[in-house]
Amino acid sequence: MDICKFSLPEIIFGRGSMQYVGSYALQLGAKKVFVVSDHGLESTGWVGKLLNILDKSSLKWVYYANVSPNPRDHEVHEGAELYQREDADVVIALGGGSPLDMGKGVATVVSNGGIIQDYEGANLITNPLPPMIFLPSTAGSGSDISQFAIITDVQRQVKMSLISRSLTPNVSIIDPDMLNTADDALIVSSAVDALSHAIESYVSRIAHALTETQAIKAIQLILDNLAPALQTRDPLALENLSIAAIAAGMSFSNACLGADHAIAHSLGGFFDTSHGMVHPVLLPAVMRYNLPACEEKMALIGELILGQRLRSARQTAEAGITRLEEFFYEFGTASRFREIVDDQAAFPQICEMATRDACLLTNPRAATAEDLLRICQEVW
Amino acid sequence: MDICKFSLPEIIFGRGSMQYVGSYALQLGAKKVFVVSDHGLESTGWVGKLLNILDKSSLKWVYYANVSPNPRDHEVHEGAELYQREDADVVIALGGGSPLDMGKGVATVVSNGGIIQDYEGANLITNPLPPMIFLPSTAGSGSDISQFAIITDVQRQVKMSLISRSLTPNVSIIDPDMLNTADDALIVSSAVDALSHAIESYVSRIAHALTETQAIKAIQLILDNLAPALQTRDPLALENLSIAAIAAGMSFSNACLGADHAIAHSLGGFFDTSHGMVHPVLLPAVMRYNLPACEEKMALIGELILGQRLRSARQTAEAGITRLEEFFYEFGTASRFREIVDDQAAFPQICEMATRDACLLTNPRAATAEDLLRICQEVW
Repeated sequence: MDICKFSLPEIIFGRGSMQYVGSYALQLGAKKVFVVSDHGLESTGWVGKLLNILDKSSLKWVYYANVSPNPRDHEVHEGAELYQREDADVVIALGGGSPLDMGKGVATVVSNGGIIQDYEGANLITNPLPPMIFLPSTAGSGSDISQFAIITDVQRQVKMSLISRSLTPNVSIIDPDMLNTADDALIVSSAVDALSHAIESYVSRIAHALTETQAIKAIQLILDNLAPALQTRDPLALENLSIAAIAAGMSFSNACLGADHAIAHSLGGFFDTSHGMVHPVLLPAVMRYNLPACEEKMALIGELILGQRLRSARQTAEAGITRLEEFFYEFGTASRFREIVDDQAAFPQICEMATRDACLLTNPRAATAEDLLRICQEVW
Repeated sequence: MDICKFSLPEIIFGRGSMQYVGSYALQLGAKKVFVVSDHGLESTGWVGKLLNILDKSSLKWVYYANVSPNPRDHEVHEGAELYQREDADVVIALGGGSPLDMGKGVATVVSNGGIIQDYEGANLITNPLPPMIFLPSTAGSGSDISQFAIITDVQRQVKMSLISRSLTPNVSIIDPDMLNTADDALIVSSAVDALSHAIESYVSRIAHALTETQAIKAIQLILDNLAPALQTRDPLALENLSIAAIAAGMSFSNACLGADHAIAHSLGGFFDTSHGMVHPVLLPAVMRYNLPACEEKMALIGELILGQRLRSARQTAEAGITRLEEFFYEFGTASRFREIVDDQAAFPQICEMATRDACLLTNPRAATAEDLLRICQEVW
């Protein structure tokens, strides 16, 4: 094993844990909080509840909700201006990956200056960020745990990956009750996102014992709990999906990802597609491509999916991937790119850009733009 | 599940990772480092190596090695005076649990004032501590991961438990190469300590999914790797013991411990015994006492130990405990208190004191001083 790192935020987990957000903000020295969320979460009532808690803690706040589903560079800069104009001192983000990544973007720009593009890549953030408290409303993005932020550069049509220890929030308050207001589509796309984090980070070139344990735990929990969570909104199943997202976040934040995410970022920058839609199409194809480079690990994933081991590692791995496709299909996800984007012509450019994404560095099998294009064509 | 917390330091893991200690100290703003270790580690060469790395990073340092195997209050105060006289700004501790806990004690007193006794108990440390970087030389104490410090109050003859989020170091640099210079007895006692952390925290009243995964991982790794680590100093087995100690640390730091540790602390304050000697005697007896309160979890531990499940949960749990005693015995540990202490008369007082130890609060089954005394008498 090479030298590896493992870090994560302080996690507060449990139903009703949102109530502690005020005391944590005060502990972190907050006087005026910059709150990020989006209009969807306002309508569920969670934003109002959060602001009430801040009021009861006698905290001032300023609220920002100009956040696209794939958050954009100019939205970050607008948020940063508001933060500075209002003299805020702590960032609280409530939402799925988009408001959380927006919180990271704003925190980066207000403390390090310049524009968000200056920090694209790994370890380019030097000044400490203002304290961040995150409240994830979905069980999927892992942004509440991870060192990653994904922001779209609108002009270049690319989702930039920012990776830095500083992007891990100080505290994540994870309240599975928030999943009660999520609709089926959101629960599925979030779980699929978490599953792709777990699978890609498990076979990553820099996976290690501490991340692998988490990845395996996440895969098992999602396979076991997604159906009951949808069918009956069983609180225990929802809680387990939350735990799965945390475990997957611990894994990918420290072991990074692979070709599926590299292409998904590139595709998302171009077509503004969401991760949750892309993975069911792309992940099985990427797993097949990677299989020769990590047969035993793919077999272990296969064993989790199938509930048994077949005659050989290769057979188990292959049958597992096929069963995974059926698993996705049962939840009504797309299985071909043509179902979610309308133009195949951009794929060569998308795959070319994907080769420059940091996630490709840790893919278990080397891949050129041509390799990536072949993967995409297979599932057109 | 109730609301729970999970936190840990930034971990740098891998053979040779000690080389990064200088750059991490500089990142944390160090100008003059307070280095804690002990004479045993000087003779292995690790202290010299560490000081060399600091020299090469142009860091000034002051060295402190007045650390007993169970570190004492007056040693903490002497270290704190040295830290302040020398105007140090970062604590680096290298060693087993003793130098690491000493580092925590010194960091607490220099930043919060008073004497170390002022901080006995949970969450009594209010001011931020100076940055701490820890380099564990054994795979066992978990002090490099945990929110705990154990310091002996010499006058009261009690090992005080200090528990606070602030006692987690900023960075733990875990270099399994350091285990190469440990003798058999140290490897065994450290592994036994880690195993007791894993087992007690797994059945703790406040265990949760994030801690349980770690505890199970730790138990499995120790059972599988202790014998090969001793027999051949197989580097992979030593690395796995390191990983086990980290995983057990993650678990107990966040889920706390139980009656075995409550008694061991009390006994250690009285007789100056080490944890590693006490657990093989005490842990199986405590597990038998706890069995009715957590039969299914004890059965799962039994299944790991036995490699199979027997007819009932209870049978599996009981057979597992018996097999665990044999496992300890194979490594030459004591199986009766009379082998390690020479006087039974103090036990009523020891058990009375153990009821005031914070670890007893999370034991899965309530226990009075009389209950604890019966457990101790069984294994006299």
